[in-house]
Amino acid sequence: MNDKDIPILKALRDYSNEDIAYFHTPGHKGGNAFRKIGFEPFDKDLLSLDVTEVPGVDNLHCPETSIKEAQELAAQAFGAKHTFFLVNGTTGGIYSMILAATNPGDKIIIPRNCHKSVIGAVILARLQPIYISPELDTILSIASGISPTAVKKAIIEHPDAKVVVITSPTYYGVCSDLEQISKLAHDNKMLLLVDEAHGAHFGFHSDLPKTALQCGADMVAQSTHKTLPSMTQSSMMHVKSDKVNIDKLKFFLQLTQSTSPSHILLASLDTARYIMQQKGEELLKDIADECNCLRDEVNNTSDLYCLSKTDIGRDGIFDIDNTRITINFSKLGLSGTAVDEILRSKFKLQVEMSDLYNIVAICTVGDNAESVKRLSKAIRTIAKEQGIGLNQIESPSLGAIIAMPSMILEPWEAVYQSKEDVPIDNCIGRICGEMIVPYPPGIPIIMPGEIISKDVIDYALDCSRKGIKMNGMKDASLKYISVIK
Amino acid sequence: MNDKDIPILKALRDYSNEDIAYFHTPGHKGGNAFRKIGFEPFDKDLLSLDVTEVPGVDNLHCPETSIKEAQELAAQAFGAKHTFFLVNGTTGGIYSMILAATNPGDKIIIPRNCHKSVIGAVILARLQPIYISPELDTILSIASGISPTAVKKAIIEHPDAKVVVITSPTYYGVCSDLEQISKLAHDNKMLLLVDEAHGAHFGFHSDLPKTALQCGADMVAQSTHKTLPSMTQSSMMHVKSDKVNIDKLKFFLQLTQSTSPSHILLASLDTARYIMQQKGEELLKDIADECNCLRDEVNNTSDLYCLSKTDIGRDGIFDIDNTRITINFSKLGLSGTAVDEILRSKFKLQVEMSDLYNIVAICTVGDNAESVKRLSKAIRTIAKEQGIGLNQIESPSLGAIIAMPSMILEPWEAVYQSKEDVPIDNCIGRICGEMIVPYPPGIPIIMPGEIISKDVIDYALDCSRKGIKMNGMKDASLKYISVIK
Repeated sequence: MNDKDIPILKALRDYSNEDIAYFHTPGHKGGNAFRKIGFEPFDKDLLSLDVTEVPGVDNLHCPETSIKEAQELAAQAFGAKHTFFLVNGTTGGIYSMILAATNPGDKIIIPRNCHKSVIGAVILARLQPIYISPELDTILSIASGISPTAVKKAIIEHPDAKVVVITSPTYYGVCSDLEQISKLAHDNKMLLLVDEAHGAHFGFHSDLPKTALQCGADMVAQSTHKTLPSMTQSSMMHVKSDKVNIDKLKFFLQLTQSTSPSHILLASLDTARYIMQQKGEELLKDIADECNCLRDEVNNTSDLYCLSKTDIGRDGIFDIDNTRITINFSKLGLSGTAVDEILRSKFKLQVEMSDLYNIVAICTVGDNAESVKRLSKAIRTIAKEQGIGLNQIESPSLGAIIAMPSMILEPWEAVYQSKEDVPIDNCIGRICGEMIVPYPPGIPIIMPGEIISKDVIDYALDCSRKGIKMNGMKDASLKYISVIK
Repeated sequence: MNDKDIPILKALRDYSNEDIAYFHTPGHKGGNAFRKIGFEPFDKDLLSLDVTEVPGVDNLHCPETSIKEAQELAAQAFGAKHTFFLVNGTTGGIYSMILAATNPGDKIIIPRNCHKSVIGAVILARLQPIYISPELDTILSIASGISPTAVKKAIIEHPDAKVVVITSPTYYGVCSDLEQISKLAHDNKMLLLVDEAHGAHFGFHSDLPKTALQCGADMVAQSTHKTLPSMTQSSMMHVKSDKVNIDKLKFFLQLTQSTSPSHILLASLDTARYIMQQKGEELLKDIADECNCLRDEVNNTSDLYCLSKTDIGRDGIFDIDNTRITINFSKLGLSGTAVDEILRSKFKLQVEMSDLYNIVAICTVGDNAESVKRLSKAIRTIAKEQGIGLNQIESPSLGAIIAMPSMILEPWEAVYQSKEDVPIDNCIGRICGEMIVPYPPGIPIIMPGEIISKDVIDYALDCSRKGIKMNGMKDASLKYISVIK
């Protein structure tokens, strides 16, 4: 018996055997976060800890002993009134907080480029979305933070909305001004819910941006596994406000998560909280220092552009996460995706994500100074070897992000309609059955239930011609669009 | 740094260190399923396999390589047309199959004692539930299988229903006549969806009951982790029928599961499939033989009652799962719960579940003959030492399971109503805000949105007096009931 007929196991082992430095999630970095501090919570056979709710092992859905205690310790550590451990990822937290804060038919103010789980919640809760456009980062050619001005406009136009949802930080490490946004929401009797998936580490070092809870958010969902040393799919949600109906929230937390939760995932959340409380500040300082050093080296000695604190103030950038490395390669005439491949194949470094223009590397308490130095050197080597490109990569027409299309059906209604694939030239005037998201900049140009205009088609075709990916589409080649019959 | 301040990790380690024989889920039994056959897929540091969707590692939500291949291999192994791996437990599968098969407002025929995930799906999909009462097991005092007659009655009364959902086997190992039920559903243009959470192993040995797919079910959700050697929270759903809208199903599979799935859970599903294909028949034969031996010993040499194939035909029992050990202790004057505690403290054996009358032990390919023999001996020792009880435990008034209350609000509507806690004496005529489930027999006497009658109150108080637990209630002591304002 061997793994050649077990394709998933084999793929994971093959990757693990490549001996690559991980600049991607999860935050424990292949267990390195534990080895590094000489505390290996799972050194004993991990499978022996994978058990069900036998006496002595608590129940996530009605915690009374160890899970209750662990959640209380986490609430203290993260500055919350209540903390809930999540086993269906941050998705389960986003769903629960939005379902708990709304009733069917309510208006909800959300960023147009929110994570798909926010749209999922809008569908499950039967809500009417009011979209805010994010600012545009003119250097990185991607969606940036949400400005308080945009939030204020949406609130004034829709004073009957119940909730404002903000994603902060972005995948690229850009934070919005949550303090101002929180004030705007609360002054207008709305709750502020924050998708802080990429910011679970913020509270553990003073050089990092303020946490959403510190800025006044009522509920927050965090991907603990992304930037802290817990296992993939394990997350937390925090509640600080008295305005939240906790019984309703608990109901939806149960509804959106398995009745057979993995206690290994739960134990990994508990362990991540403990390690961060004990050593978080010191470990984060070391890694942020290394990242800042990389930033300086890249910005000072190459033609590349690495996002840094000096960007604060432009294009919706209110603050940035020092541990997130976002580098733009446009000037070299190399796509981010090509750099991603070179880093893996030539330098044994794997970044989290790349798009046409940029790469994103995630650094956590699981990293070592040496690997960050290797990343810095590899990037500068690529820049040097490549030189400034003859053909700078063409940017998307950021200024031309088209007006918000008319919504004929709410997202949940669109889900239940019959659909058909229609050649793109015949789609104008039809109701769209899918989401079209040119990435970058990562802002949907149309959502299911909205009318397809000529502007939408033209913009999509222009992006496609420039090599921009069309996320979320059935036919990414843009020959056909799925429309409602 | 140590685990005393990491309560969840400590609880799991403490249990693991007790060196107890596991007669509970997950099916790998602390990794024993792998050690036993000398193939240890996770002997390498498991954390090094916990990675995100880097190149080479496939994406669960749009599988193209290893996950696609693994799902296809699983479809072959389980006799399906399509198989989907699940990381939010069987809950995610139940939600997806019900959401895919219905539109809001549709009628759905479900057992009154279905798993809470079926009710969850009814809420998420805004469906109108039509309840079927399960048969009652007069010896074990619990809910038994669903009779085709009961299904037929519901279909005749509600010919406009779209879907029939059946739970088979039950937690206690009792199967319903799915072939007949499938014929009834299909003859009336309804889909048959089966919650086969406890029957993932059925297809791997001919002495076990037929699988739901073999009986004609259109879609099936299975808790692979319960009876096969995968990790807790990992499950599968299978589709066999052409009548299923696969695009809609895939949409809801994405909606109900994390966008950051654990690849360790996925690899464990892949591994479980492989092991069962390679060695399942042989391993299951050994364990079923041991279980049959235990059954004979218990039934022949003690006053206890162990469910066996000889029960087929009575009280809704169409077939039974040989690997499930269900023993009734009523005659001894000992509660199942008390026996559960004795087995753990005196014999170092932990069963899956116990109620006032019975214990349930789960045996899988991860068990050894010796541990089953130890369980058999321990049970007979308890029976011998205890002797026949002076006070046989009083049964619930099975005959008095009251008529189905009137539904004023559909379950999803009840979720969104304000509620208040009212003293039980003042609740008659109010709309219930919670579920009241005397366990055993485990059949809800009232659901949220239904009118509380005097019969409901009397029955609940009678059960409570007999020591029967009230599951699902905010105040299990029955002083207050949560009702809709």
